[in-house]
Amino acid sequence: MYIPVILGTSRKGRQSEKVAKFMLQQASKAGLESELIDTRDFSSGVTDSTKTLPQSQKLSEKISKADGLIIVSPEYNHGYPGELKMMLDMVYEEYRRKPIGICGVSAGSLGGAQMVEQLRLVGIELQMVPIRETVYFSQVQNLFDEGGGIKDESYYGRIKKFLDELIWYAKALKKAREEE
Amino acid sequence: MYIPVILGTSRKGRQSEKVAKFMLQQASKAGLESELIDTRDFSSGVTDSTKTLPQSQKLSEKISKADGLIIVSPEYNHGYPGELKMMLDMVYEEYRRKPIGICGVSAGSLGGAQMVEQLRLVGIELQMVPIRETVYFSQVQNLFDEGGGIKDESYYGRIKKFLDELIWYAKALKKAREEE
Amino acid sequence: MYIPVILGTSRKGRQSEKVAKFMLQQASKAGLESELIDTRDFSSGVTDSTKTLPQSQKLSEKISKADGLIIVSPEYNHGYPGELKMMLDMVYEEYRRKPIGICGVSAGSLGGAQMVEQLRLVGIELQMVPIRETVYFSQVQNLFDEGGGIKDESYYGRIKKFLDELIWYAKALKKAREEE
Amino acid sequence: MYIPVILGTSRKGRQSEKVAKFMLQQASKAGLESELIDTRDFSSGVTDSTKTLPQSQKLSEKISKADGLIIVSPEYNHGYPGELKMMLDMVYEEYRRKPIGICGVSAGSLGGAQMVEQLRLVGIELQMVPIRETVYFSQVQNLFDEGGGIKDESYYGRIKKFLDELIWYAKALKKAREEE
Repeated sequence: MYIPVILGTSRKGRQSEKVAKFMLQQASKAGLESELIDTRDFSSGVTDSTKTLPQSQKLSEKISKADGLIIVSPEYNHGYPGELKMMLDMVYEEYRRKPIGICGVSAGSLGGAQMVEQLRLVGIELQMVPIRETVYFSQVQNLFDEGGGIKDESYYGRIKKFLDELIWYAKALKKAREEE
Repeated sequence: MYIPVILGTSRKGRQSEKVAKFMLQQASKAGLESELIDTRDFSSGVTDSTKTLPQSQKLSEKISKADGLIIVSPEYNHGYPGELKMMLDMVYEEYRRKPIGICGVSAGSLGGAQMVEQLRLVGIELQMVPIRETVYFSQVQNLFDEGGGIKDESYYGRIKKFLDELIWYAKALKKAREEE
Repeated sequence: MYIPVILGTSRKGRQSEKVAKFMLQQASKAGLESELIDTRDFSSGVTDSTKTLPQSQKLSEKISKADGLIIVSPEYNHGYPGELKMMLDMVYEEYRRKPIGICGVSAGSLGGAQMVEQLRLVGIELQMVPIRETVYFSQVQNLFDEGGGIKDESYYGRIKKFLDELIWYAKALKKAREEE
Repeated sequence: MYIPVILGTSRKGRQSEKVAKFMLQQASKAGLESELIDTRDFSSGVTDSTKTLPQSQKLSEKISKADGLIIVSPEYNHGYPGELKMMLDMVYEEYRRKPIGICGVSAGSLGGAQMVEQLRLVGIELQMVPIRETVYFSQVQNLFDEGGGIKDESYYGRIKKFLDELIWYAKALKKAREEE
């Protein structure tokens, strides 16, 4: 199962990078093939869904191959970052009938919960299946040690539940897509 | 496949009843086993998730048996009707890993689009899979003839797409649930 | 300034009652005329916006008189309680150009944040002004002492900010309505 | 009253430009001082709220001066365009206590209704007042003649209602801000 981790912000000093790297590690430990898809590498400046840009073609290949997606994203003013939306809007059919799990990141205590809701609705329109399980990373600036390890061990249980659910859907939908 | 049609309003004079009956007919024609679940028959007056009420038990049985749900609901002030929410909140585990398709109903031209978005988010929290396909029934007061037939034939194509997608998910998820 | 506190759930054993009573107290201390509007006293069983019910007429009078609203509500499955929505849908013009402040309540750590977003959109359609400031009451079951006092003192600062903003809007809009 | 019109997409071939120019014209006719704020002129590539970029400073000046905002934006996959979000996230305090009116644009029949809901929630977090009135521009590709005039005259009534409401709030809040 190939389920890449999308890092949803290109902001200088982004804290979500720590979360994305940590989730990538956890996904690998759970037996998934994964890699980071960084919005910084897929920047276009304007919405472009023509798939004529080199970065669109690269994204198209990755999403086509994917059995699901993990998105790690901060919340900016209760919504998703512009660079994440611009990247997601680059392709369309590639997302069809694949699950999406969202990890919200915030400096405050709500872990990006409002952004998660908005992004789920975008995910449905992209023909994806947004899973219920979510990991809300609150107070992210204090959450990781220097080596990138998470200080609050309670996250492990939540991440396991999140990955289990994502993998259940990834398998179920992959099988059904292949039998079509 | 048993996929009941929920009628999401108990309002006197409700127009959505015509839509629900029409969708029930279309679901049957598509080979689904179905029936109407009418909020009028599951009224509780207050939110109650204890499953001790007779109507909760009846709902629990129906949703347990279901392979998916169709909800036909009007939009009231950009949200879902209170009676629909109260009924949905009666049970929980019964919804797990089943698809939900929503038909929005409105007197205006937007077909309940805003309500659909809110209800999708509730559906995700109920562990359901809200499908992308939606049928927006606009200007409902002028849409049906006396016999309950739909005057605008373009709806048939949309309903077919909607039911096809719902059935695809119902089958895929049923199979995966059974193989657990 | 008359700004009542709506208690948005009728559920047996509701924790939000403590929050609503606490907010009523705080509103009074801030100089507001207030009172509790309890969904239990405005139950109708079905959505009814005809304003022919005695409880609709009572609600109409209260909302007409109000210079703004505080809603204290739990989150049920990421949405608002059915009884709250049913009550809000009873009247319409009475809400026009008045501010609404929402306090979310949850047993978990997100304080009803997802419900707040949905309710804000309903508020806009009701022609109200949803203010940015919100008080999220998390882990409500542990938050109050036996006398109804709040154990976590950090809430006082947030409540002050919330009430200040609500009062600012209540005054600004009242004045503008009167000058029409 | 200075209320600029934000054009929310930089996409090549954007249809929303016609709507934005039309709304600019209508705003001027209604007596407003206005101008187009085009996302193409405020592109940054990544979210940046440091206000150190020249385009951030320019935006800051314009929003500071504004008594309200009109946003004309298409809907992409049920959400707002990335370039619009990135631009809005550039500044913050400048938006405080000013009304925002949103015009949705779509090639389909729902006029961007889902995007409008998401953008309203962002607007609230930016401390703005999203007004209820909205103009949904559906089937935009067929809506304007070669001279930029609108073919469907029923829009004029909706635009008047929209501008009237926006101006009411702009005046009420300006006055209240000045009296602080």
